[in-house]
Amino acid sequence: MAASTRPPGGTRDFLPEDVRRREHVIGIVREVYERFGYEPLETPAFENVETLLGRYGEEGNKLIFKILRRGSHEASGEADLALRYDLTVPLARVVAQYQSELPRFFKRYQIQPVWRADRPARGRFREFYQCDIDAVGTTSLLVEAEQLEAVSEVLERLGFNDFVVRLNHRDLLAALLRAAGVPPSLEASALVAIDKLDKIGRAGVQAELVARGVTDTAAASCLDGLGMDSPMGLEGRLQGDARGQYAIGQLQSIHSLAGPFAGRRIRIDPSLARGLSYYTGAIMEITVADLSGSLGGGGRYDHLIGTFLGRDVPACGFSLGLERIIVVMTERSMFPDRLAGGAADVMVTIWSHETRVDSLALASELRRGGLRVDVYPEADKIGKQFKYASSRHVPCVAVVGDDERARREIAIKDLRTGEQKSVPRGEAIPFLKGLLQARGPEPHASSIP
Amino acid sequence: MAASTRPPGGTRDFLPEDVRRREHVIGIVREVYERFGYEPLETPAFENVETLLGRYGEEGNKLIFKILRRGSHEASGEADLALRYDLTVPLARVVAQYQSELPRFFKRYQIQPVWRADRPARGRFREFYQCDIDAVGTTSLLVEAEQLEAVSEVLERLGFNDFVVRLNHRDLLAALLRAAGVPPSLEASALVAIDKLDKIGRAGVQAELVARGVTDTAAASCLDGLGMDSPMGLEGRLQGDARGQYAIGQLQSIHSLAGPFAGRRIRIDPSLARGLSYYTGAIMEITVADLSGSLGGGGRYDHLIGTFLGRDVPACGFSLGLERIIVVMTERSMFPDRLAGGAADVMVTIWSHETRVDSLALASELRRGGLRVDVYPEADKIGKQFKYASSRHVPCVAVVGDDERARREIAIKDLRTGEQKSVPRGEAIPFLKGLLQARGPEPHASSIP
Repeated sequence: MAASTRPPGGTRDFLPEDVRRREHVIGIVREVYERFGYEPLETPAFENVETLLGRYGEEGNKLIFKILRRGSHEASGEADLALRYDLTVPLARVVAQYQSELPRFFKRYQIQPVWRADRPARGRFREFYQCDIDAVGTTSLLVEAEQLEAVSEVLERLGFNDFVVRLNHRDLLAALLRAAGVPPSLEASALVAIDKLDKIGRAGVQAELVARGVTDTAAASCLDGLGMDSPMGLEGRLQGDARGQYAIGQLQSIHSLAGPFAGRRIRIDPSLARGLSYYTGAIMEITVADLSGSLGGGGRYDHLIGTFLGRDVPACGFSLGLERIIVVMTERSMFPDRLAGGAADVMVTIWSHETRVDSLALASELRRGGLRVDVYPEADKIGKQFKYASSRHVPCVAVVGDDERARREIAIKDLRTGEQKSVPRGEAIPFLKGLLQARGPEPHASSIP
Repeated sequence: MAASTRPPGGTRDFLPEDVRRREHVIGIVREVYERFGYEPLETPAFENVETLLGRYGEEGNKLIFKILRRGSHEASGEADLALRYDLTVPLARVVAQYQSELPRFFKRYQIQPVWRADRPARGRFREFYQCDIDAVGTTSLLVEAEQLEAVSEVLERLGFNDFVVRLNHRDLLAALLRAAGVPPSLEASALVAIDKLDKIGRAGVQAELVARGVTDTAAASCLDGLGMDSPMGLEGRLQGDARGQYAIGQLQSIHSLAGPFAGRRIRIDPSLARGLSYYTGAIMEITVADLSGSLGGGGRYDHLIGTFLGRDVPACGFSLGLERIIVVMTERSMFPDRLAGGAADVMVTIWSHETRVDSLALASELRRGGLRVDVYPEADKIGKQFKYASSRHVPCVAVVGDDERARREIAIKDLRTGEQKSVPRGEAIPFLKGLLQARGPEPHASSIP
């Protein structure tokens, strides 16, 4: 007997109801992304280790799962491959590799797992799915607006009506730091501290900025700037700072292009920093009150592809976190009831060893009619078979007993009402569909054509 | 600039058309499996290394991708995790872990990638998808029959009409070896040789059997037995061998239970060996003439779960190889044309920088009407925008020019026919749907509700 049958730490097994919930969310994400003209891309689970190392900062490097060389090289203890850490770096590699085959504006979505050796927490796992959209090949702010509209629509379709889209710009952050008197040499370090504002609060960030070498006055002034949320106030504060003014203009454009649907969710928030270092323009994040961290985030990264290709190609993307979404949806009971339904619409019973072929033939017939059909595998007592179907939440059972066979009928019992009726075999499919449509639990949408 | 932008050896990037083909196959597999009452399961990409080691034989062990310990343990060069090698061992672990939550007859399907450090070849990759169905908890042969029917239906639905289902039984193989005079101590070794029959032919296997210690006469007799395909002939050869007779009876039962649909595909083939050591009963494989190796295979394994649980639970499963199926379908041009269609039904153009908001609003409106809508991101010359849409195989473009705005109309051009028409804005959706349904390329089925 093996030591443990649990999945490795930070990972999970998904039993049928879990998978149905995940597929429900993924199905809506995919449908909305496709409505926006994004096309699917998939990349391998692992990349050459040098493709990933050094892309995600010091902390990120430590969280990469590395794969041992194989065969005679295994003993060296060296790694040549590493598990995908996000979907953005693989996209950048793909754009560099296939540029001649890709359209001028490549809009792709990608829904795949990534792996990070992070400390597990609520909504944070070592294997988790990202649902990314990225548009490559243009600096047009239509992209930012379109992506915010797409991910907002995903969340609305899933039933979220209280999320906030936080929007900021890397150049605005830099300008606010300049205006506060933080020297350029400390900018990157200061951003690491600012990124913790949600977690450690204003006083915590003030202390950390000072610890990183920013003066007390500059730190306080910086935090004042980050707390502003009116473009007019920001414009006043950054008077004479051309890049700062430019960033404010970009954010206003994105806000107005996003239109009324996503627009009413958008809050320009100069304190939003986002950890990843490759962002170069707008940065965005979606939050809800009952989840620390975010449901997703993204931004513009106009230089990342260049590190693979040798020349810059502008790009912008947004990533929704599947697990984060599912954690909140589960706690808020937002999943439709039908996902908890049975694995089949009908269970065909086995009357006796001799009639097994008849039961299987009936099952085939019902399946051809579009129903999901389970067959009880053994010739147990019929009551035991009924009980089993009931415990499996299968709404109907079909019996081909000796009498029914003689009359070319089948007996159908609705386990939800207890009603039973014999119908001619040719009428079984419409009769069952009628029963299934008449009352809950609803069968899966896909099972009734 | 990074060294290489190619994916790691033996793995592939899937560009949009590749993903659509994969999703087309997976969609049919999933739908058929669900019709048969199977429920989805997903397990993590990696397992604890001890869960996998020693499960797949000497050769298999070498092909497992192992993951380095992290943090301060990385320098040890040791592996604590390993990538999933198949979907059967993880299922056995899951059944042991969650037995109290699972139904008495657990019928699950699982469609996920597995990884093997094999030498890449046609249809053989280091990352590939398996599409498995397994039924746990019964020794009933209804399971074998049902699974053969399910996978046959998948293949028929995909357009295969020439596949053969090879069916054998581990006990029949053992009986034929006994009858030929192969000593029990050489049975396992002889099966390794027999498994190569398709690759190295009769003379090759004869030589290898002899090299493994089987006498010339026994080897020849063994190969004669393996060449028989009538149950009557086999019964004669195995007279007095109770286990052999039992195995023949089981194969005949499976054949008759499978019914006419799958039944006409089944060929009882005593030479089918299958590599994996955990099989205990029926073994099955599906082949087509133009692919060496198989499209899928499976069998009964009544002891594997016991190695995790401490008591046996019977089980039987079948695995279809996604990549094998796709290789043959691609070579035979079996994919529907619509999979090569454009990423959108309509592309909305940008008339001028000032009208961007109007174009985005139109795009939102069309999407709400159920269409897949791309928006050209820049205010380029309109001819250039049309050309781009055409190159992307988008069938229609919509223009909101200054005149159209004034008349509250939009101009719609069908790029396939060159016809252009202005329609009142409120009629745009039905007009576009009419165009899309009237002539190919067909839009994606999901895009027209």
